[in-house]
Amino acid sequence: MPWFDLPEDQLRTYRTATPEPEGLDQWWAARIEEARSTARETTLRRHQPETYGDLGVWDVEFSGGRGDRIRGWYLRPPGAGDEPLPVVVTYIGYGGGRSVPSDHLGLAALGFANLVMDTRGQGGRWSTGATPDGQGSGTFAERSEVMTRGITRPEDYYFTRLYVDAVRAVEVAAELPGVDPDRLAVTGGSQGGALSLAAAALAPSRVRACAADVPFLCDIRRAITLTAAYPYAEVADFLANHLDLVDTALETLRYVDNALLASRITAETSVVVGLMDEICPPSTVFAAYNAIDAPKRIEVNPFGVHAQSRQHDERKLRFLRELLMP
Amino acid sequence: MPWFDLPEDQLRTYRTATPEPEGLDQWWAARIEEARSTARETTLRRHQPETYGDLGVWDVEFSGGRGDRIRGWYLRPPGAGDEPLPVVVTYIGYGGGRSVPSDHLGLAALGFANLVMDTRGQGGRWSTGATPDGQGSGTFAERSEVMTRGITRPEDYYFTRLYVDAVRAVEVAAELPGVDPDRLAVTGGSQGGALSLAAAALAPSRVRACAADVPFLCDIRRAITLTAAYPYAEVADFLANHLDLVDTALETLRYVDNALLASRITAETSVVVGLMDEICPPSTVFAAYNAIDAPKRIEVNPFGVHAQSRQHDERKLRFLRELLMP
Amino acid sequence: MPWFDLPEDQLRTYRTATPEPEGLDQWWAARIEEARSTARETTLRRHQPETYGDLGVWDVEFSGGRGDRIRGWYLRPPGAGDEPLPVVVTYIGYGGGRSVPSDHLGLAALGFANLVMDTRGQGGRWSTGATPDGQGSGTFAERSEVMTRGITRPEDYYFTRLYVDAVRAVEVAAELPGVDPDRLAVTGGSQGGALSLAAAALAPSRVRACAADVPFLCDIRRAITLTAAYPYAEVADFLANHLDLVDTALETLRYVDNALLASRITAETSVVVGLMDEICPPSTVFAAYNAIDAPKRIEVNPFGVHAQSRQHDERKLRFLRELLMP
Amino acid sequence: MPWFDLPEDQLRTYRTATPEPEGLDQWWAARIEEARSTARETTLRRHQPETYGDLGVWDVEFSGGRGDRIRGWYLRPPGAGDEPLPVVVTYIGYGGGRSVPSDHLGLAALGFANLVMDTRGQGGRWSTGATPDGQGSGTFAERSEVMTRGITRPEDYYFTRLYVDAVRAVEVAAELPGVDPDRLAVTGGSQGGALSLAAAALAPSRVRACAADVPFLCDIRRAITLTAAYPYAEVADFLANHLDLVDTALETLRYVDNALLASRITAETSVVVGLMDEICPPSTVFAAYNAIDAPKRIEVNPFGVHAQSRQHDERKLRFLRELLMP
Amino acid sequence: MPWFDLPEDQLRTYRTATPEPEGLDQWWAARIEEARSTARETTLRRHQPETYGDLGVWDVEFSGGRGDRIRGWYLRPPGAGDEPLPVVVTYIGYGGGRSVPSDHLGLAALGFANLVMDTRGQGGRWSTGATPDGQGSGTFAERSEVMTRGITRPEDYYFTRLYVDAVRAVEVAAELPGVDPDRLAVTGGSQGGALSLAAAALAPSRVRACAADVPFLCDIRRAITLTAAYPYAEVADFLANHLDLVDTALETLRYVDNALLASRITAETSVVVGLMDEICPPSTVFAAYNAIDAPKRIEVNPFGVHAQSRQHDERKLRFLRELLMP
Amino acid sequence: MPWFDLPEDQLRTYRTATPEPEGLDQWWAARIEEARSTARETTLRRHQPETYGDLGVWDVEFSGGRGDRIRGWYLRPPGAGDEPLPVVVTYIGYGGGRSVPSDHLGLAALGFANLVMDTRGQGGRWSTGATPDGQGSGTFAERSEVMTRGITRPEDYYFTRLYVDAVRAVEVAAELPGVDPDRLAVTGGSQGGALSLAAAALAPSRVRACAADVPFLCDIRRAITLTAAYPYAEVADFLANHLDLVDTALETLRYVDNALLASRITAETSVVVGLMDEICPPSTVFAAYNAIDAPKRIEVNPFGVHAQSRQHDERKLRFLRELLMP
Repeated sequence: MPWFDLPEDQLRTYRTATPEPEGLDQWWAARIEEARSTARETTLRRHQPETYGDLGVWDVEFSGGRGDRIRGWYLRPPGAGDEPLPVVVTYIGYGGGRSVPSDHLGLAALGFANLVMDTRGQGGRWSTGATPDGQGSGTFAERSEVMTRGITRPEDYYFTRLYVDAVRAVEVAAELPGVDPDRLAVTGGSQGGALSLAAAALAPSRVRACAADVPFLCDIRRAITLTAAYPYAEVADFLANHLDLVDTALETLRYVDNALLASRITAETSVVVGLMDEICPPSTVFAAYNAIDAPKRIEVNPFGVHAQSRQHDERKLRFLRELLMP
Repeated sequence: MPWFDLPEDQLRTYRTATPEPEGLDQWWAARIEEARSTARETTLRRHQPETYGDLGVWDVEFSGGRGDRIRGWYLRPPGAGDEPLPVVVTYIGYGGGRSVPSDHLGLAALGFANLVMDTRGQGGRWSTGATPDGQGSGTFAERSEVMTRGITRPEDYYFTRLYVDAVRAVEVAAELPGVDPDRLAVTGGSQGGALSLAAAALAPSRVRACAADVPFLCDIRRAITLTAAYPYAEVADFLANHLDLVDTALETLRYVDNALLASRITAETSVVVGLMDEICPPSTVFAAYNAIDAPKRIEVNPFGVHAQSRQHDERKLRFLRELLMP
Repeated sequence: MPWFDLPEDQLRTYRTATPEPEGLDQWWAARIEEARSTARETTLRRHQPETYGDLGVWDVEFSGGRGDRIRGWYLRPPGAGDEPLPVVVTYIGYGGGRSVPSDHLGLAALGFANLVMDTRGQGGRWSTGATPDGQGSGTFAERSEVMTRGITRPEDYYFTRLYVDAVRAVEVAAELPGVDPDRLAVTGGSQGGALSLAAAALAPSRVRACAADVPFLCDIRRAITLTAAYPYAEVADFLANHLDLVDTALETLRYVDNALLASRITAETSVVVGLMDEICPPSTVFAAYNAIDAPKRIEVNPFGVHAQSRQHDERKLRFLRELLMP
Repeated sequence: MPWFDLPEDQLRTYRTATPEPEGLDQWWAARIEEARSTARETTLRRHQPETYGDLGVWDVEFSGGRGDRIRGWYLRPPGAGDEPLPVVVTYIGYGGGRSVPSDHLGLAALGFANLVMDTRGQGGRWSTGATPDGQGSGTFAERSEVMTRGITRPEDYYFTRLYVDAVRAVEVAAELPGVDPDRLAVTGGSQGGALSLAAAALAPSRVRACAADVPFLCDIRRAITLTAAYPYAEVADFLANHLDLVDTALETLRYVDNALLASRITAETSVVVGLMDEICPPSTVFAAYNAIDAPKRIEVNPFGVHAQSRQHDERKLRFLRELLMP
Repeated sequence: MPWFDLPEDQLRTYRTATPEPEGLDQWWAARIEEARSTARETTLRRHQPETYGDLGVWDVEFSGGRGDRIRGWYLRPPGAGDEPLPVVVTYIGYGGGRSVPSDHLGLAALGFANLVMDTRGQGGRWSTGATPDGQGSGTFAERSEVMTRGITRPEDYYFTRLYVDAVRAVEVAAELPGVDPDRLAVTGGSQGGALSLAAAALAPSRVRACAADVPFLCDIRRAITLTAAYPYAEVADFLANHLDLVDTALETLRYVDNALLASRITAETSVVVGLMDEICPPSTVFAAYNAIDAPKRIEVNPFGVHAQSRQHDERKLRFLRELLMP
Repeated sequence: MPWFDLPEDQLRTYRTATPEPEGLDQWWAARIEEARSTARETTLRRHQPETYGDLGVWDVEFSGGRGDRIRGWYLRPPGAGDEPLPVVVTYIGYGGGRSVPSDHLGLAALGFANLVMDTRGQGGRWSTGATPDGQGSGTFAERSEVMTRGITRPEDYYFTRLYVDAVRAVEVAAELPGVDPDRLAVTGGSQGGALSLAAAALAPSRVRACAADVPFLCDIRRAITLTAAYPYAEVADFLANHLDLVDTALETLRYVDNALLASRITAETSVVVGLMDEICPPSTVFAAYNAIDAPKRIEVNPFGVHAQSRQHDERKLRFLRELLMP
């Protein structure tokens, strides 16, 4: 993919043209409060010591959006006792679930506690999941596409409840045993980046650091007319058929647009963007980044595509170490 | 797609190797009874006389699987009064919903009453829908993929409730005003063909004629190892990741396999199959057809692909006229 | 396909840069007169009453461009006697022919007489046809590509004679039994839209209403440099090889460019355009639409692709009813 | 493309299952006689001496099938006077025309006279052409697809007249100035290979050597069910729609099947086949090769695809030199 | 990809038809000896403690095939002192290099020492590398394709020297500080699986356990005629052009065929194979597996594709723990 | 591909934004001098007179970049004695090698001596080659990708030594027997066009005429951000992963950028460009063309793609004849 979006100097100052819905803070507060009020106890079950040995792995279940039970992994460094550790909450990219813990050993290896949140109703496309999208969706993951699920009403929209899951994961992580709640970070790429931004925006008092890689769900109205790539194109496909729902859907999408939510972030934030990323186009990423008022940094990769370079990971690790293990 | 499946002479006698689950009849009876017991009244609302004039169109809502409300269209010939007409129930292919009534004027034009059943949680891919997949899925259609939704338990599986919707649609159609319940047919292509076979198998006393074009969901275990085409490949994708769910998923799929259900059909049945159909491979269609004990006919198109020729439609219309307007 | 063409506000005023050939009206008058002068009698043969029952279907043959015999279907509402009905002439999209009558029952179901014109030398790609492209082309349809057939001379160009077919179809329709010639509409999508515009432009006294969906063959010089999609790209392919024919071909294309012909339209015209349509790019559609001086309306679908939403059909039906059954 | 056809040992003995139409020889004799009887004089016009200098190039026009005028190039070695030279007739692959003479300098460079036959109604896809497909097709090449043109009647079929063109090209070549008619070869690849085989079969007394590379149009009934690749798939596409024409089309195809015609060849014949050629599958090539009774050789390339290796060209040149310049 | 290879019961006993080259052991001994004799000292340089903290990471350089210097990473568990640890040598898949250490933290997290070998002349396609393919190739990785590099002579063939690199990596690993040389395993997927098998076969006295996932370069002659997928298809492409090199290349490939080398393995070996893997077809994997005489196990994934499920990783970790940390 | 680059009027004046490296002339002089100083004698071996007869073909080997031996073909017109002829040096496109001489008979047929230079380390993709990329790469061609080989240092970069090969080929050609060194031209398409421009720029005193078709490697920094097509995209892929090498690689690419070298050309130069060429985008070709100070001409094909029309060949032949055979 060549450079197809705005030139870099315009990206540096680009802001979304989508106005914020009125009462957005109260609206989100109501969603989160609804989840909290129906929450049940978080459970932890030790997972396969015969595989992971001294590195502690627990299968976690907590109450997320609408009170639905959300799965996850909790990992602790090998030999870590009860001492309070900095904790990172990890979110997963589109189509994927929490996978197996062996996919997530890196942060624990470097001394962090780590909560990996499963993605409700996703998994089976490139990884595995264990969380259905609420009652009536069976007992497990689903190889699905969710961009238009419930899109006719913000309260019903799939990403509304997924964002609440992400906020709840932060709240749960802060109370896990052996965690220092004042040293909490969120991170993830693509959809995981979107959830990082959303959690940092909607639970600002909890999140110290936010590392959002090539984040999805920013400046969505622009995104769905700028790229032919999925998953954004799911919305375009749907609206190509549902002429009657265009306005309604665009309205709903505003509630989960990180270019609008990002101004609420107070955590120090690190973003990476690829100028050749057609899945999360650079202008949409900058629309969110430029809206952040907190301390922030952005890594601009001139040849970066959505599958960003693993070389970025070392920079991210240094960022997390710098903020959480100063 | 060239000929990739068994030679035609072997197709003529091919039978599925998948054994039927024990107690399949009771199991389905329980599913259907559950739906009936929670059913609420069917509602009809006149739709756009300014568009359709004398041709009567009603927006229908009835109770389907698990009691969920299912939408549909009811169409009656122009100028038809209350006289009891033969009625055809139409089911839609994968990814599609009931669309607009103007997509379905043909049967009414030829003197049939016609109930078009919407497909829960589908629509927005190539047509439009209006029915969510039960509570918690919003208020409308969804551009989704459903082959693995609830696949870990037959009772939770998406197609279980969709099949119940199809049975309920037959029951509802038989009781619509101006319908002669003794002259009822089911029809559809691909997923619509699967629903036609399933409805004829699970409501045999109601269905006089069944016209199933290139039916999906037959001999499923074979299908998912024989073709790389979607939607069957959704299951293969899912199980390529979820090694732990292979046996469970294969078990579930038996409950909705039309190659197993088809022996229950008593309606006269017409099937069309394409020898170059890689989406619903010919051996899987024959696996269902060969299991039917009722009067039957099959049209074998040597160059037929999944998007079958419209020339077949005239043959189907004659079949329906022959059985329902003798 | 994202938005790739001009922004909507520029589309609203965009005009083609291609100048009209001198003497275009006389040139077309000569083509049409040549066809009329060699025309033979229109024949009608009743088609399959055992399939269509009371809904009248006739297999029509009339004389089109160059005197070649063109096939079509004539359909009349069930039970319609001889009373004069409003009549709609339907044209088919690229690669398709008249198909079977069961593909065209909707208008008759709603009370219109309907003449469906076959497309000479097309069919067999996604539907069926029955009309060869004149003598020497066999006796039937052909799975062909026709964008460069005869492109070196306007008089030899395939679309010249196809446009004359379309005009002749209007003249024939007006004289069919049971037709009110004062209530005549033309309609179709893509190539069918091009033929609708052309017929309305070249037979303005005959056509009361024109419903052209995502019309092809508008602002052709721009189209062939703006999109990589077929069929426009057939011309680009051809001229990538035939460097010697570039000027000649561009000259020919002016004669069939609806952005030039459209100013002749007097019928009330309804157009639909998709901003994501890469097959008939929106600026080319607007180039024709903006040239129309008659009463007109345009439906702009922001996420519309070439395969337009079926939801548009209801709007089109109301348009036809409004103008022809006031 | 991996090995997808019969194993090599079975290929060596494979014969077509298609029976020969009755009276095939008389039928072809009538076609050729019809062409001869309407033939007009062959014309030669010197082409661009400022480009080609001493190497003689003439633009040729002769009468082919149905009397239609066919274009070609006639090339003679640099400095060749009037001495009678061995002559090679070259036929072009599908979609291509005669191109420019600079594409064909090799044989003249090596001392052969060379007649390159244009392909009626083809060109503009990957090369250029100059011959329309008879009257009514304009004055030039066409970027078309011709596999189903006239397929409902052998006499109308496109390839019938193209085969007659090929036979006529041999007759014309034998009478060109400076040609030794007893040393005449035909050659070409793919469609050009098909025309080589056909010309050798239908004008056996004229052709001394035949070099057919990866020939098309052999064992056609098998080919159209064995490969998904175009152009064979044009027929399958057409018949997927035209259910009513399956038998008729299969009947027509027998008349131009080189697996049936090949037994008439008396020229020494050289064939090359690729075991990975999905466009002209190896069994279809062997079906023709195995039917040849004349002296013959075949080069079997285990990794060969349709775009055969240029290394084969040296072998072909030696074959031609051996037979025509002994 | 559906099941395209032998049925599973035949896979269980399938053996390669390719005979072993004479003197294969001596030939490989000479290659390895040549490498040893030109080897220089292994160097270790501490890498980014500011990123990795207590987890020890060293940038390694050692002498591989032909004496070329090969890069790698050496990782040790956080807080590990000098105590001798079991050690795993990791090899990388085709097109990839050693990437960054953060890609490889899992084994160290679980208590293993880990040497990750870079792949000479690869990297830049989906990960990064740091090792050129010997002198004259620059100083770094290359985004290349290497299947035919030096294929005309076994001694020159790219994979010959890469296999020697793999053997040398085992020798180097055994002598790293803090390593128990009696508890050494090799592992990798695809090309990494091929290198694991080759290292276990060519350094049998050093390797205690071998975990080869979906191994590449097994039964190569069959593979290149069975699949159209790259990288095997690089060879087919090359030989489609180089008709003159077919025999030579097939001869060379025998020297690096793991289906021939595998009988030399003495380490306990674990293999995973996917029945839908078109990149490393199942029969080729079984050809190597069935040739192993040592204790062994195979995981057969009926829906497995080349990108195997991450769920397999837990099984592999238990296998390594079981053999190296009993 | 539609028009995707600058409008034609801007192309006419477009200049690269990349600055020339300091000391570029000395740097190249050093490279060429290094090659000359290690050069060994050029060898010629007569090739297959049984195939080519009077047309003389020799298998040539000469010393190119770094002293590596480079293969080629030397062809002379049939019957040419020792008289000094004008000579053309031909370079090959990306992925290809010198192929067989029968691919190159045209120029000899028209009276030119012709040296065809093989491309080191290329071949086997669409033609064949015979030259490895220096020592350690085996003895033959390789089906490879070379855009990033040695890209971290200009002296190591693959194209540096390939350009030196091209210069050396000119020097060698000028001294071949039967050549008039004052009438020497270079030509080629794509990569062959790049080598033509580079040879004309770096050996200006030797080259009288330069015919560069759709030349590659011009304005490279722009090219790799403007097109997604290979081979330019190899660089983008590599740098998408190797974030650490972006600056280094961009620096290296300046040394081989024909938009910078072209100002050194003194030969009369003919260029062809296609406005729809996405492999060598038109602005990059114009960047080189506009930098040429010598007499020049450009053929702009509005529908031209990278596979340019063969009709261009006649114009090129006239250009060569005009300059070399006045």
